[in-house]
Amino acid sequence: MPHRFDVLGIGNAIVDVLARAEDDFLVDNRLAKGTMRLVDAEESARLYGAMGPAVQASGGSAGNTIAGVASLGGKAAFIGKVADDDLGAAYRHDLAAQGVHFATEPLPGEDTGRCMILVTPDGERTMNTFLGASLKLAPGDVEPAIVRDAAITYLEGYLWDPPAAKEAFLEAARIARKSGRRVALTLSDPFCVDRYRGEFRRLVVDREVDILLANVRELHALYETADLPTAIAALQAECPLAAVTASADGAYVVTPERVERVPAHPVERVVDATGAGDLFAAGFLYGLARRWSPKRSAELGALAAAEVISHMGPRPETSLAELVRQAGF
Amino acid sequence: MPHRFDVLGIGNAIVDVLARAEDDFLVDNRLAKGTMRLVDAEESARLYGAMGPAVQASGGSAGNTIAGVASLGGKAAFIGKVADDDLGAAYRHDLAAQGVHFATEPLPGEDTGRCMILVTPDGERTMNTFLGASLKLAPGDVEPAIVRDAAITYLEGYLWDPPAAKEAFLEAARIARKSGRRVALTLSDPFCVDRYRGEFRRLVVDREVDILLANVRELHALYETADLPTAIAALQAECPLAAVTASADGAYVVTPERVERVPAHPVERVVDATGAGDLFAAGFLYGLARRWSPKRSAELGALAAAEVISHMGPRPETSLAELVRQAGF
Repeated sequence: MPHRFDVLGIGNAIVDVLARAEDDFLVDNRLAKGTMRLVDAEESARLYGAMGPAVQASGGSAGNTIAGVASLGGKAAFIGKVADDDLGAAYRHDLAAQGVHFATEPLPGEDTGRCMILVTPDGERTMNTFLGASLKLAPGDVEPAIVRDAAITYLEGYLWDPPAAKEAFLEAARIARKSGRRVALTLSDPFCVDRYRGEFRRLVVDREVDILLANVRELHALYETADLPTAIAALQAECPLAAVTASADGAYVVTPERVERVPAHPVERVVDATGAGDLFAAGFLYGLARRWSPKRSAELGALAAAEVISHMGPRPETSLAELVRQAGF
Repeated sequence: MPHRFDVLGIGNAIVDVLARAEDDFLVDNRLAKGTMRLVDAEESARLYGAMGPAVQASGGSAGNTIAGVASLGGKAAFIGKVADDDLGAAYRHDLAAQGVHFATEPLPGEDTGRCMILVTPDGERTMNTFLGASLKLAPGDVEPAIVRDAAITYLEGYLWDPPAAKEAFLEAARIARKSGRRVALTLSDPFCVDRYRGEFRRLVVDREVDILLANVRELHALYETADLPTAIAALQAECPLAAVTASADGAYVVTPERVERVPAHPVERVVDATGAGDLFAAGFLYGLARRWSPKRSAELGALAAAEVISHMGPRPETSLAELVRQAGF
C-alpha cells in the first residue's frame, strides 16, 4: 500500500538548553555522564542557575530523528505535546520549517518541556529533562490516519516515563500493526532501559515492535550483560531487525541470520554528541522506508550522525539531502 | 585610578534567532546581505514564519563583546534592557553565567528584543531586529558607579535607533569622560551609519569618543567614499585611535601617526560570521584596558573573532582565555 509518510515519530517534545561544562561540574552535581535523568521544576531551576551560557534549540529524541528524515528529503510527521508558550511556538516553527507534518494540539497553561544538556570537552552530552507539557501526551493525540499512512511509526523508549504517553505509544503501535505498517522503537537511554526492561523486551518478543534501535550501553542494559557478543546473540534470538550504534566503532545491523558492521563516518572532532543516535535513526529509518537494505540504511544513518556531532545542537545544520548527494549515495 | 571593570558595554539586549538560508531567500525577501534592518512585530512574525529551523542564543552587539571580554578573563559589565519574559531570563542567565555584572532592571509587560539572522552558505549573516524592550533603555538605567569604575565604556551605534537609548548613551559617555575614563564606539552597521553619519562624526571630532571601531563598509559609509585609503586618511585626521576590520584581510589599527595591519587569524571555514566584529572588539578592548599596545590588542581581537566565526551563534563556545593560552599569547 502506498504511504503518505516515510516515518512518523512519536516522542517527548523537548527544547534543548545546551551549555559547555567541565567534567568537574558533572561530578559536583552528581550527574552520570552520557545519560538522561528526569528533573522537577525546582531542580531544573537550580541546575540552570549553576550552568554556563546556553543556546536553545528544538530537540527531543524522536523530534530530532523526524527533522533528520525531513532533511534527508523524506516525508515525515511528528506527534508530541508542547505548551502554548514561546518555547512551544519555536518547537512548532522548527518542525514546520523543516517540512514536517506536526498537528498535535498545544497544551494551554503549562510549560513546554526542556532538557538541560551539559556538553563536556570530550563532546559527550549529559541530559537533565523537565518533561513539562510532554507529561500530557495522551492516546487522543494519536491521529489514526497519520499512523495508517506512515511506512514506519517510530517510538521513543522515553515515552514510557509519562504514563499517558505510554498509552499513546501503545495505541499508535496497535494502529500501525493493524494497518500492516512497521513499528520501530529506540531504547533511548540505559537508565530508561533499567526502569522498563521487562516491558521493552516483551514489546520485542511479542512482535509489537519490528525494528529496534539501541546503542551498546542500552543493549547491555536490556540483556543485563557487559559482553557485547552475548547481548547481540540475545537480540538475534528475539528481534527480526535491529541497529546497534557503537559511537566511533560505528554500528551493527543485527538480524536473526547475521550481524553486519557499518563503520562510523569520519569526523574531524566530536563537538557535541547530542543527537548522534537520533540522526543515525533518521538515516536508518529513511532507508528502510524506501526499501533500502538494512546495511545501506545504516550507512546513511552513519552519515547523518556525523553531521550532527560536528556542531553544537541536536539537529542538522545543513541539508542532509545535499550531504548525501555530495557523498555520492 | 584602579578600575573595577575592564569594559562596560551598553547596547540593545537582543536574543538571536539564527537559521540557515539560501541567497534566493534574501532576494525574495529584499534583504541586503550582511546588514541589519529594523522590523516591527508584524514583519518579525512574517519573516519568522518564512525562515527555516532556528536556534536561539543571547546576542546583541555590545552584549556579545562583553561576553567575549569575560570569556577572555576580563572583568566586564553590561547595561541593556530585556523584558521580564523567558527570553529576558535566558539573556540575564547567559551574561551572569559568564561572570558579567548585569543589573539593569527588566521591563514588565513587554517582549525582549530579538534578531532574526539568516546565515547564507558563504557564512555571511543578514539581520532583522525587532527591538522590543530595548526601545525603553533610558538614562536612568545608566548606573554612574559602574561607568566610573570601568576603564573603557563601550557603546553601540545601534543605540542611536531607540531615542531614549541614545540619551542613555550620551549620559554614560558624559560620566565616563568626567571620570577620566575612555569611551569606545562601534559604528555597528553601514545603514546605521547612513542614518546617523553627522552625529557619529561629531562624537569623534568633539572627542566624546576616544576609540572607534568599524568595519570597512561602515568606514566607507562614514566618510562617503568607496576608497579605503581615503577613508583611513579621513579617520586619521579626526580620531586618536581606531580599529577597522576587513574580514579575511584582517584589521587596521589606525592612529594619527600610523596605520598598522593585523592579519586575520586563520579558520578552516567561516560557518557563521555573526559576532565576528563583536568578538574582535572584545579582544581589542580587553587588550587596551590592560594597557597592551593597540596592535597587540588587535591581534587578540583577531583570535577571538576566529573562534566565533567557526560555529553558528554570536558568542564564544569555548573559553577564550584557554584559547589565548594555547595560542601562546
